[in-house]
Formats: sequence, structure tokens, C-alpha cells
Amino acid sequence: MAEQKIPYKTYLDESEIPTAWYNMRADMKNKPAPLLNPGTHQPMTAEELGGVFCADLVAQELDNDNRFIAIPEEIQSFYRMYRPSPLVRAYFLEKALGTPAKIYYKFEGNNTSGSHKLNSAIAQAYYAKKQGLKGVTTETGAGQWGTALSMACAYFGLDCKVFMVKVSYEQKPFRREVMRVYGADVTPSPSTTTEIGKKILEAHPGTTGSLGCAISEAVEVAVKSEGYRYVLGSVLNQVLLHQSVIGLEAKAAMDKLGVKPDIIIGCAGGGSNLGGLISPFMGEKLRGEADYRIIAVEPASCPSFTRGVYAYDFCDTGMVCPLAKMYTLGSDFIPSANHAGGLRYHGMSPVLSQLYDDGLMEAVSVEQTKVFEAAEMFARVEGTLPAPESSHAIRVAIDEALKCKETGEEKTILFGLTGTGYFDMVAYEKFHDGQMTDYIPTDEELAKYRANLPKF
Amino acid sequence: MAEQKIPYKTYLDESEIPTAWYNMRADMKNKPAPLLNPGTHQPMTAEELGGVFCADLVAQELDNDNRFIAIPEEIQSFYRMYRPSPLVRAYFLEKALGTPAKIYYKFEGNNTSGSHKLNSAIAQAYYAKKQGLKGVTTETGAGQWGTALSMACAYFGLDCKVFMVKVSYEQKPFRREVMRVYGADVTPSPSTTTEIGKKILEAHPGTTGSLGCAISEAVEVAVKSEGYRYVLGSVLNQVLLHQSVIGLEAKAAMDKLGVKPDIIIGCAGGGSNLGGLISPFMGEKLRGEADYRIIAVEPASCPSFTRGVYAYDFCDTGMVCPLAKMYTLGSDFIPSANHAGGLRYHGMSPVLSQLYDDGLMEAVSVEQTKVFEAAEMFARVEGTLPAPESSHAIRVAIDEALKCKETGEEKTILFGLTGTGYFDMVAYEKFHDGQMTDYIPTDEELAKYRANLPKF
Repeated sequence: MAEQKIPYKTYLDESEIPTAWYNMRADMKNKPAPLLNPGTHQPMTAEELGGVFCADLVAQELDNDNRFIAIPEEIQSFYRMYRPSPLVRAYFLEKALGTPAKIYYKFEGNNTSGSHKLNSAIAQAYYAKKQGLKGVTTETGAGQWGTALSMACAYFGLDCKVFMVKVSYEQKPFRREVMRVYGADVTPSPSTTTEIGKKILEAHPGTTGSLGCAISEAVEVAVKSEGYRYVLGSVLNQVLLHQSVIGLEAKAAMDKLGVKPDIIIGCAGGGSNLGGLISPFMGEKLRGEADYRIIAVEPASCPSFTRGVYAYDFCDTGMVCPLAKMYTLGSDFIPSANHAGGLRYHGMSPVLSQLYDDGLMEAVSVEQTKVFEAAEMFARVEGTLPAPESSHAIRVAIDEALKCKETGEEKTILFGLTGTGYFDMVAYEKFHDGQMTDYIPTDEELAKYRANLPKF
Repeated sequence: MAEQKIPYKTYLDESEIPTAWYNMRADMKNKPAPLLNPGTHQPMTAEELGGVFCADLVAQELDNDNRFIAIPEEIQSFYRMYRPSPLVRAYFLEKALGTPAKIYYKFEGNNTSGSHKLNSAIAQAYYAKKQGLKGVTTETGAGQWGTALSMACAYFGLDCKVFMVKVSYEQKPFRREVMRVYGADVTPSPSTTTEIGKKILEAHPGTTGSLGCAISEAVEVAVKSEGYRYVLGSVLNQVLLHQSVIGLEAKAAMDKLGVKPDIIIGCAGGGSNLGGLISPFMGEKLRGEADYRIIAVEPASCPSFTRGVYAYDFCDTGMVCPLAKMYTLGSDFIPSANHAGGLRYHGMSPVLSQLYDDGLMEAVSVEQTKVFEAAEMFARVEGTLPAPESSHAIRVAIDEALKCKETGEEKTILFGLTGTGYFDMVAYEKFHDGQMTDYIPTDEELAKYRANLPKF
């Protein structure tokens, strides 16, 4: 491999880190549907949203027009601590697969949060600080978002209250400890510290929690506490905006190398990493300047895109949040207990939902044992131990590369390696010991949850 | 900070990764003392060493003459998977300390092994494969070396048997799982699978193990198994040779930036990271071309340099290894159970021992609560969660920077950030909960172990 022209890793110069986020919505003909007030079913106003979210973030949430939004210097400075992230040519994986495909991945795991989540966490913490707030509240599932937010809050000296889905809190005590190192206050959810938590515990004693529950608790605390706002690590338009830094860097690096991807693949839970990765590519597609195959990969156990419906739904179990139009399984859907890692949210980013509904991207679902097979293979040949979430994208990147092997096509594949799996060793152990099982909800189960969608 | 000239992170180009290791011994006037046969007390011959180590590695171990040794292309190719590692300007730490000092660190934690250990693991696995061996055996303490070797063996399809110090095996189940992902076979040490393990268990029932025990077990298995050799992650001359890639990259990056360090700081357990980091700088010092203050930092609970003696000693508890002349506390010294992380080896690299004895470097010891204070501060301001081992260097870098604050001197400090602390959350938790204690062995205790040094 000595003669290759393309390096293993391409780092942009620090001066090439994007100075503005790209707002896909500006180029969308069909804009994502607005958030609705759950009481009046009218679009949420900036004023209404301002009770829950920081003012500047509300403006970003509602902004369907500005194509670029400048990244404040303080955030740029923090980005330089761990960005640019490398664009990696997966030579070792290509060789192991014997594929003519050229595989690239954008690796976002080289920071202590272990994932891309820091890109939005630092932005959200910055605007909270700018507004003079005392602190923020949030939920976390697998723990990456909570860790990222803790780091960001430590940097700006903000208080950080994290509601962690109980099953993760128990399975991942070290995740909790990392958050504590950064000074965060971590509570397992559902908890008895909130009204909604008490209600959920009464209705479902012994529940292991869900993102939907944890969101409700975090929102309740934010709304009831002076000087606090709620922040969210995925789903929202503002989060996709911040995460566009992933795609902008990836595209700049590929442009520098003179390479154009044919297929772009990302895992999708709430959609933040995928939305960020595809942003500038989708922008070209929306403007008719280029075409790309874009594939969202979701777990078969939580198949919002592939088996959900596109409808207005609650973002949380407690139904305190605005209604969002999105691909959803129903707000009380909780993935089976055998489901490992994140990607367990019942809904999907409204922006991605609209793009998917418009036929601008595809979606596939994969079973978790197949995902961990891909993860272990990737770890052994490419060195990096991937997060279970990221491994969904690896699975499909491998599948697409193997198709190229059959057809002889030299396609260029780009996927998002969103994070590392250091805190997911319980899941790896299960897989290794042959105790990991797959779960695919039946049509009947899904219909049951779907029947609870709000009707209006 | 927008106007700074020096970037936060400096990455060399892939083409600038060193193609030869630098062998400090070639420039040392006083060579490190040779390894001795424990039976005859004569220098170990290549033939004798060849029973335990791979042939090419024996040649490197004994080579006091060649200044540069070419890095085989296969190893260079693997290095490109995770190297060059970044040289980071610690702007955030400088700001937090309010120091005029300029602090740099070479960060070796951006790979799944979580540390610099991979630099030597891949080299040792390569030479084992080249020799046509079936596999290798080794010991691991904190687990970084075992992980690195597992990754390297997976890459070359070698079998990998790891004896893990029992206390770490129990405290760090996830470390073990990572090794299993890479296909390694991990046994807690002392074990009943070896003669020496059985003997140690008989003499010390309930022992939590030590590196010295684990080495003895790994060597026994290597010597008794057809097609196996033993490999070691520190102490040996060959390991320092491989680790010179750290210092060569650091110096190349600093030269590029036009910066010269005044003080170079590294943690020291067996000496591999420190020896690697300082190599090219020490080379200039040995050749009289430049001067640098070089500081080894060791734990107060295992103070080989600062309170040990420079003498021939056994490298392992079972006394099956060659004798090495080194700063040592005695081969049956085991750090107190409250000691967190690695840096628990009773001896020190013979190369570094000679350099220290010649007054070419300094050593200080630090207590672990002070180390974790520095670790937590570093995590919060620089983002990266450091390994406890690396945090020893952080502690002294901070202390030196604070001295500069007092004197107003603008010294340039370079330290080695050898790894990340993702698998050390038990220790962080203890620190956080105020349950971490310090331990300094008394003179009487040290005298007791010293009395057992071999006499001849």
C-alpha cells in the first residue's frame, strides 16, 4: 500500500475548520413541518419555545431561510480543541473485504465524549451562557450526549442536570462517572424527583426507562427552575444545524482529495449525526448540482423510518413537549430490553423525515447481531473499537462494499463513524458470549403504539 | 485566542511519520549495563535470549551501536492507521493556570488501546510473525499493553495469551472484554495454569498479583509452548527503541513550529513512554548539541528512581528472567493496594537508569490524590480525560507552569499525555467520593525489600 495517493487519514488545517454552519432547510423546497403547541395545535411561536429553550437556539430552530449561520468565535475556539476530525480511508477494511469499493469514514470519536455529540453540546452551552442562565437540563440514553454536555458545561461554568435512562445508568456506571468528572448531576430516569417521573413509575413500576420519559423529566425541571433551560442532543433542527460541521469538514476534505462519494451512509436514532454528515451533500442534491445515494441505517428493533408513519406526534412520553411531524413509532414505544446502545428514540428528526418523505434519501434497518459482527470485524482490521450506534453504518457500508465486489463496481462509499465503544463493553461481552439476541417488533405491536398517536 | 500563530493541534503529514527508530544507546557514552544470566551472572548471549524473545527483537535489544534502525514497511503501514499523533498546545490549560509558560503535550491516546503501547506492540507482533511463530505471551497491569498487543496480534493473525494482574482483572472487566474483542486469551495472575503461579499462590494466598508475578507466568508459558515467545511492553531497550517514534514526531512538529522545549516531562513506570518521548532530545543532549531539563515522574507509592537503588535485580517475581541493572525497589516489591493505575513496576528501564545515574535527567515522585486533582482539572479545561499514569506528568507540568507564574519566566514545557482514562473510572470515582488515599512506603519497608536484592 506504499504507493497510494490518498492518505490513510486526512486532516484539514485548523484554518479550514468551518466558520459557519450550513442550514439545509434553506435549500429544501418542502420545509420541515413546524412544531405545534400540544394544546392549541398551532405552530409554536418563538415566545412559547423560549420558555423551554435558549433564545438564540429558538431562532436557529425556526430559521428556514438563512443558508449559513456564523459560528461564534468562542465555539470555534472550543472546536479547535478536538476538531478537525479525520477523514479516514479504510484501506484495511477494503483489503479484508476484497472489494473494489473505496471506503471512507469521518471519525468523530476522538474526544472524551466519545462521539459527535460535542459539536452541538458546546453550541447549546454557549448560547445558554450568553443568555446568562445558571444551567441546563437534558436527558441521555447511551450516555454520549450527557457526557458531551457535561464537558461543554464544565467549559462555560454552567450547572448541568442530566436525566439518564435507567437501564443505561445501571449498565454503564462508568459513563455516569465521566459525567461526574465534568461536574454534572446525573439522575436515573424515571425518578421520583419530578411529577412526571412519579406518574410514570406509578403506571409502570419497574420500568427501565426510555428517552421519552427522560426528556419529560428534564423539560419539567427546566421549566420549573429559575435560570434553567432544556437542551436536546438530537432530533431538533438546531442540532442538525450544529452537526453540519461534520459534513462540511468531510466534504472539504474529499474535495481536497478530488474524491466524490457515490453513497453516503449514517446511523439514525434521532438523526443528528446523519443530518450533519449529509448536510452539504444533500444541499447540492437539493440545488440540483450533484446526486448522491444517501442511506439512513436504523436498528430493526426501533425502525422509525422503515416501519413508522409520518405524522404529528409527541416528542416525549409525558407529552409536555411540542408536537413534531416526523416518522414515528408512537411516543410510548420503548425498544425491547435486549436492544444495545443508543438509537432507541421513537421518532426522527423532522428535517430528515421530510427529506425521506420526499424520496431524497433511503432507509434500511439492520439486526443487532449483524451489527456487532460488523463492529468486531471493523475493530480488528481498522483498529478503532466502534460504538454500537456507529456500527449500524459500518454494517451497511460493508454490505454495499460487498455488493461492489459482486458487480465489480468501484463505488466510493462515505460513512459516519460517530463514536467509540469503550463504554459499551457489556454489549460486546454479550455478543461475544453468544447471548445477544435480535428483536423485531411485530406488526401488531407497532399498530398498538401507532393507535396512540395524537389525532387531529 | 484568534490571533495565535501556533495551532492547537499540530499533525505531521503522513509522509513525515518517522521511517526509522532512533536508538539512544548509540549516543550514550556510558552504555546501559547488559542483561545477565541469573545462573552464571554472565551477559546474556543472543542465543540465550532467543529462547524467550524473537530473534530480531534480541538483535535490537543488544544493539548499542546503530543510531537508526529502519521501521519495516508493514509496521509503517500500521502506524499510518493511528499516527501521526497530535502535538497539542495546551492553550486552555495555560489560561486556566494564568501562567506565562507555554505548555505542549504529545497525545498518544487516540487509538483503541488508549495509549502509546501500540507503538511497540505492533513492532513486536510483526517480528514474531516474521519468525513464523504461532503466538506470543505477555503480562499486563493497567491493561493498556495487553489491549495494544491484542490489537497487534489480531492484525497479524497471531495467538495472544495475556496474564493480567489480578487486581486489574477484577477492577477492569471492560479492559478484559476489549482484549477479547481482539481475540486475546486473558488469564488473571497469579493463576493455577503455571508452576510459578501455583507457587506464588501457595506462598501468598489471596494476593492481588503484581507485574512481577505476571511476567514470570507469561515467560513460563512462552518457554514451555512450541512456537511461542514472550513479549514485554516496557523496561526493555527494544521497547524504548520502538517508542522513539513518539519523540521523533514530537521533535519534528516542534521544529516545524520553531519551538524548543526547556523542560520535558513524562511519567515513568518501566520507562517506555518517557524513554520514547525524550529520545531525540536526549540524543542532542548526549551529543552536546542542545540542553534540556528532563523530568521523570513516578508515584510516591512506587518510587523506583527517587528511593530505589541502582543495582542488578530480577525483572520478575519468579526470578526466571535475566537480571537487569536498574533503579529498583526489589523484585518482590508490590505497591500498596490503594495505588491506582499502572506505574507499579518495581524496577526501571536500564537505559533510563543509566541516564539518570549519569545526571542527565531528574526524577520526582508525586502522591496520587494530587495526581487526580491535576487529572480532573486537565479533563475540564483541555477536554481529554487522562489516564492516571499520564496524569503524573500533567501534575508536574502544572507545577512547573505555576513556578513560571511566580517567576514570570516564559518557559516552554513539553509533556507526554500517554493515554486516556476511560477504563479507570473506578479510580476517578474513588477520588471523587473522597475515598482515595495516599501511600508512601516507609524507609523500613523499602529496606526490607532491598535486602532481598541478589548479591554478587
